[in-house]
Amino acid sequence: MSYKILGNDVNRVDAVAKVTGRAKYTDDFIERDMLVGKVLRSPYAHAHIKNIDIEEAANLEGVYAVITPKDLPKIKFATAGHPYSLDPSHRDVEDRLILTDKARLVGDAIAAVVAKDEIIAEKALKLIKVDYEILPAVFDSEESAKEDAPKIHEDRKNNILASSVIDIGDIESELKNADFIFEGEYETSIVQHCQLENQTAYSYVDSDNRIVIVTSTQIPHIVRRIVGQALNIPWGRIRVIKPYIGGGFGNKQDVIIEPLTAAMTLAVNGRPVRFSLSREEVFIDTRTRHAMKFNIKSAVSREGKLLGIYMKNMVNNGAYASHGHSIAMSAASKFRPLYDFKSIRVEPKTVYTNLPTAGAMRGYGIPQVCFALESHIDDIATKLNIDPIKFRKDNFISLGHIDPLNEIKVRSFELDKCIEKGKELIRWDEKKKIYKDQSSNKRRGLGMACFSYFSGTHPVSLELAGARIVMNQDGSVQLQVGATEIGQGSDTVFSQMVAEVLGISIEDVHIITTQDTDITPFDTGAYASRQSFVTGAAVKKAAQEVKEKVLSLASKKYGLNIEEIDIEDGNIIEKKLGDVLCPLGDIALYSYYDRINAKPITSDTSENVRINAVAYGVTFAEVEVDIETGKIEVLEIYNIHDSGKILNHKLAEGQVHGGVSMGLGYALSEQLLFDKKSGKPLNNNLLDYKLQTILDTPTIGVDFVEEADPAGSFGQKSLGENPTISPAPAIRNAVLDATGVAFNKIPMNPQSVFEKFKEVGLI
Amino acid sequence: MSYKILGNDVNRVDAVAKVTGRAKYTDDFIERDMLVGKVLRSPYAHAHIKNIDIEEAANLEGVYAVITPKDLPKIKFATAGHPYSLDPSHRDVEDRLILTDKARLVGDAIAAVVAKDEIIAEKALKLIKVDYEILPAVFDSEESAKEDAPKIHEDRKNNILASSVIDIGDIESELKNADFIFEGEYETSIVQHCQLENQTAYSYVDSDNRIVIVTSTQIPHIVRRIVGQALNIPWGRIRVIKPYIGGGFGNKQDVIIEPLTAAMTLAVNGRPVRFSLSREEVFIDTRTRHAMKFNIKSAVSREGKLLGIYMKNMVNNGAYASHGHSIAMSAASKFRPLYDFKSIRVEPKTVYTNLPTAGAMRGYGIPQVCFALESHIDDIATKLNIDPIKFRKDNFISLGHIDPLNEIKVRSFELDKCIEKGKELIRWDEKKKIYKDQSSNKRRGLGMACFSYFSGTHPVSLELAGARIVMNQDGSVQLQVGATEIGQGSDTVFSQMVAEVLGISIEDVHIITTQDTDITPFDTGAYASRQSFVTGAAVKKAAQEVKEKVLSLASKKYGLNIEEIDIEDGNIIEKKLGDVLCPLGDIALYSYYDRINAKPITSDTSENVRINAVAYGVTFAEVEVDIETGKIEVLEIYNIHDSGKILNHKLAEGQVHGGVSMGLGYALSEQLLFDKKSGKPLNNNLLDYKLQTILDTPTIGVDFVEEADPAGSFGQKSLGENPTISPAPAIRNAVLDATGVAFNKIPMNPQSVFEKFKEVGLI
Repeated sequence: MSYKILGNDVNRVDAVAKVTGRAKYTDDFIERDMLVGKVLRSPYAHAHIKNIDIEEAANLEGVYAVITPKDLPKIKFATAGHPYSLDPSHRDVEDRLILTDKARLVGDAIAAVVAKDEIIAEKALKLIKVDYEILPAVFDSEESAKEDAPKIHEDRKNNILASSVIDIGDIESELKNADFIFEGEYETSIVQHCQLENQTAYSYVDSDNRIVIVTSTQIPHIVRRIVGQALNIPWGRIRVIKPYIGGGFGNKQDVIIEPLTAAMTLAVNGRPVRFSLSREEVFIDTRTRHAMKFNIKSAVSREGKLLGIYMKNMVNNGAYASHGHSIAMSAASKFRPLYDFKSIRVEPKTVYTNLPTAGAMRGYGIPQVCFALESHIDDIATKLNIDPIKFRKDNFISLGHIDPLNEIKVRSFELDKCIEKGKELIRWDEKKKIYKDQSSNKRRGLGMACFSYFSGTHPVSLELAGARIVMNQDGSVQLQVGATEIGQGSDTVFSQMVAEVLGISIEDVHIITTQDTDITPFDTGAYASRQSFVTGAAVKKAAQEVKEKVLSLASKKYGLNIEEIDIEDGNIIEKKLGDVLCPLGDIALYSYYDRINAKPITSDTSENVRINAVAYGVTFAEVEVDIETGKIEVLEIYNIHDSGKILNHKLAEGQVHGGVSMGLGYALSEQLLFDKKSGKPLNNNLLDYKLQTILDTPTIGVDFVEEADPAGSFGQKSLGENPTISPAPAIRNAVLDATGVAFNKIPMNPQSVFEKFKEVGLI
Repeated sequence: MSYKILGNDVNRVDAVAKVTGRAKYTDDFIERDMLVGKVLRSPYAHAHIKNIDIEEAANLEGVYAVITPKDLPKIKFATAGHPYSLDPSHRDVEDRLILTDKARLVGDAIAAVVAKDEIIAEKALKLIKVDYEILPAVFDSEESAKEDAPKIHEDRKNNILASSVIDIGDIESELKNADFIFEGEYETSIVQHCQLENQTAYSYVDSDNRIVIVTSTQIPHIVRRIVGQALNIPWGRIRVIKPYIGGGFGNKQDVIIEPLTAAMTLAVNGRPVRFSLSREEVFIDTRTRHAMKFNIKSAVSREGKLLGIYMKNMVNNGAYASHGHSIAMSAASKFRPLYDFKSIRVEPKTVYTNLPTAGAMRGYGIPQVCFALESHIDDIATKLNIDPIKFRKDNFISLGHIDPLNEIKVRSFELDKCIEKGKELIRWDEKKKIYKDQSSNKRRGLGMACFSYFSGTHPVSLELAGARIVMNQDGSVQLQVGATEIGQGSDTVFSQMVAEVLGISIEDVHIITTQDTDITPFDTGAYASRQSFVTGAAVKKAAQEVKEKVLSLASKKYGLNIEEIDIEDGNIIEKKLGDVLCPLGDIALYSYYDRINAKPITSDTSENVRINAVAYGVTFAEVEVDIETGKIEVLEIYNIHDSGKILNHKLAEGQVHGGVSMGLGYALSEQLLFDKKSGKPLNNNLLDYKLQTILDTPTIGVDFVEEADPAGSFGQKSLGENPTISPAPAIRNAVLDATGVAFNKIPMNPQSVFEKFKEVGLI
């Protein structure tokens, strides 16, 4: 299938808006007379709140309300909630109150103030007296999993949020009979999304006694439901509006500030209240990426065939459940359609600790498991002295592979070609020869890593998306979707899809970028790299419906069978002769103004996507390691993706650039640190938390191998999260190649590299 | 058919919003840094613009643009445009430019300035030098109709915009053979809507290079089209948003300020520009109600039967066409289904003059013709010494009457009952006896007048309306319509309709009150008392579709045939036993979250209403006339309406109160005055233009005779404009009754009454 508009380098539809400042974000709607909400946070990682004395704060001039847990419904709710279903056992764990009566992390929200301005609000917070009973805290997941650990949630048996055993084949006999057994331990650290725009919202009660929340969220329709649940208000009485947002990466896939923002406006009779987190608050009381500790044992045959893998995974979830065990389960499943293991056992265990809550972050568990697995694979290849690329290729699954547990089928698989492209781009063979036997202080090396990833959440969760199209009088169309543009470019790709199906130019597709639960069709939101795959299917269906209606009118007008006509470049054409019958606008005008048949052409539909597609990719990296200082410099890095048909190369490249940059930070510098005794964050600000800057970033090479996947509405597979998955292990493997030292823990910052080099005697 | 929610005194859905100030109007969205647009207006009623020198103005610090006609496309457009159709001959007259190169009235827009603020803009206007060639002007319609009158529009043969002859039966032979011929001349004055909120708008170019116009309009979708036409931009590139509006009464059914507002933003590179008219500007450069001069000759039999009527109507249209001859044609048609004339001839002539443009105003020609006709009827009855009520009743059409020209059929006709109610309320017979033979200075009298009115514009114009419903997860619904709430209460009535059809409470219907041409379904807007009649049909259809979808899911769930179940009080019930099967919310939840069948319940539909219904009503008035001062006091006034099923009594009463108040002003005090030589307005402000205040207004009595009309989706007929039609003639007839003096011209202000009394020798 060849396309006219899909696959082209169409500019972002919001490009001009964003560079000129015309795009409006939540804070751009803040009005001068809005009240300001602020939260009092626990200084202790674990403490009972015995008493809160608000009298002095409440009496401060300019304070409109002081809210404590007893002012709010005692309804526990889940902050994630995307797998919500009619089956209660399938829902996320409900362990949150809007304000807590027991602090479970440093920064837990104890009380809130609504005041005239920020200064008064801060002052009021200082006047609230809290009587804490300090409890012993636990920060390490293995410590916390022990029976005698301090219990974080009283109503639970212990601190283990969940644990599972995922079993395919017979791992025990595999390990017993294998020629070789390889073991390894791999560990990732707590990092954060660091999206540019902090969590920010404002809320007010409208004339209809409904609560309106304008918020920077990835998931407006889920926010609506969860605020309704948390406040025990019918969901239809909540209206959530999402303007442009400054990034999310999963951190805005939890409903964190909205229930409290709503409670704040309710506390002041519906007056508008703004509640925005500072960067310091974002670091401690939003979400992080789970630190995971993997213990891998694998069975390999003499011929270099991977036979089985046994992976234990200890997952540090922090104080509250958020997405909870789902992320460990995602890690346990999404790596499977990569290597053809006969037997697989994964034992993930997700454990509460007194640290910030871990949740969804770009990759949803896969960056961690990919670091472990792809490090392990290189370790095996190194030990068996097999070329790591050959070793991987020899062990890949093949096209048609079906996962026996989730039954996801591999309908396109171009990883071999991706690897060939990557090898060529980085000049693998040539450099490999040159970099043999280095002994100088600066040593170079090459590494690579592969990954597999899904498109959306089927069959774990329901994948429902809505789309609505209205044809204007001039033949241009309005497009509304409930799926959210969060910077990834979904508005542009949806516009392309409609233009493609309707045979019109993209300038004639006008997408409504603001999601408003009152107005836009239902869609669960932006996550799981689902948008072009899932919402795209709904958009295609809506566009097809519109096209059918157009052609049906044209067919009546010209007497030609509907099969004989089409829309091309904005005209109705006769297919065989290629003649233009009339501009599309004529049919549109007829649909509005014909005295008898007037009926504007619209479609309003939804699609329940009950299929998945496995996307693949590979990172190639070249590093130079300064042995004396422990500084690793990435000289070249390439990501080559098999994401099916690429709908927009410019946007796709942008996604890969961002994802690889995130992967570089994950590998080399990012780590959220805590005081080991108090659990207090040590670097919860953008000065001390070491994000990669443009100066740290090499030119990032991007390429694609495009093969349409039959499951994608236009042959597409996921791409959003994918690019951030494999850079860390590729860099780790390059360091191994350069130095012979296997780093099994990230980040490989100069401090840890230096210590490791000392430990192994390299310096 | 009995209803649960329709017909009840449901509170306005926007009541709280409006009284608390939460409802946002256009000016509430104005931001501090918006530029300000102002217009330079002609001081002459008729003048060629020979030259405009903008240099000094353009160089003034803070001036961003000066716009003259040569900067704008020379495309003539029509400002009204609701009858737009595929047939060019059916469209309104296109005679307007955004800025004119020839002034046709005092206040015509010659040039515009966009500046940093209002003060600078005003200063800049004074710096623009215009070289005028003053032309002779004409203000009287009869003068203007003459061949040698100064020609107002060069490209036309003369100043007659249009003239028609409407003929039913054989009026000539009727007049020849009648027992009695009665003649009369009746005249109405120029009045204005005086809606609280002046015309105001702001516009900017969005990221997509589209023009967004936020404006106080009754007709957002028509604004979109006309701005597109005036600026020669594809209509889909225009987005019009209508927030709450502070009244319209027809004055916001013309596209007056929006094309210039759009041109202003285009002149400053898309920066937001606000353009708001002052009250003084509203009086001269928006719309007025046409002054009409009627010349009536009627044929009556000895038995008191009306046989034929021959009515000439000279209509003063002012400088531009606006709705033009449509209003004279409306006047010529809507009075017809009242009295059973065998023969009718109407000869309306609409004439340009150098006065402010007349356009749509509540009643659309009928207040004028009703004043003439109902005065004439009373004059006949008086002369024949027949009781005017009996005379009317004897001559009414009967149920089933079909107008031979427009084929509108009378399917409900309760005017007799309305009259009986009115007589009783005002104690007609009792007072008639008392008020015989008065000779004191203050004399009392009783009068009444009837009217007929249509519901919407079918068959003259297309009546297309859209409605969209989305069911929320809790069983509540969102309702979107393109029809505009302009204070008349349409949002409330539409919500009631949905609640009624769906069997839910009105609190569970959430209507989106803002119309946005990008988002809300197509609808031509608020006019012609069409909303509950036309849009109501679309709303009903949308609600029925949703209901069918709900019942279909419930039928599958419970195995019962769809005919056996229903929705009642928000529950799915088994009809025969009355048992509750489940709350509606359960079905809604299933529609969102069932793994296999999930598909949110929505409807998105439109209705082309191809029928009309004739509404009726009567005013009864009691006056006390002060012979010495000419002051008329209305002691009691009652309007009794036959508008079919009343959907909301509270709102209906509100409509009648407002309409009667307007009718009182029309009868007694309102008149826009002009200097006879220069054509300059003399009282274009709310101090000198004499609106009725609450102190001038007696208690207004309201009642209804409710008989469902088969053409109304819920039995309803029009009511919006109706109440303002008959007060003026009823008061005039009461004055006739009190004094024996027939006033054939309104307003009957003390000055004119005094003069007339002197003329007839009463004083």
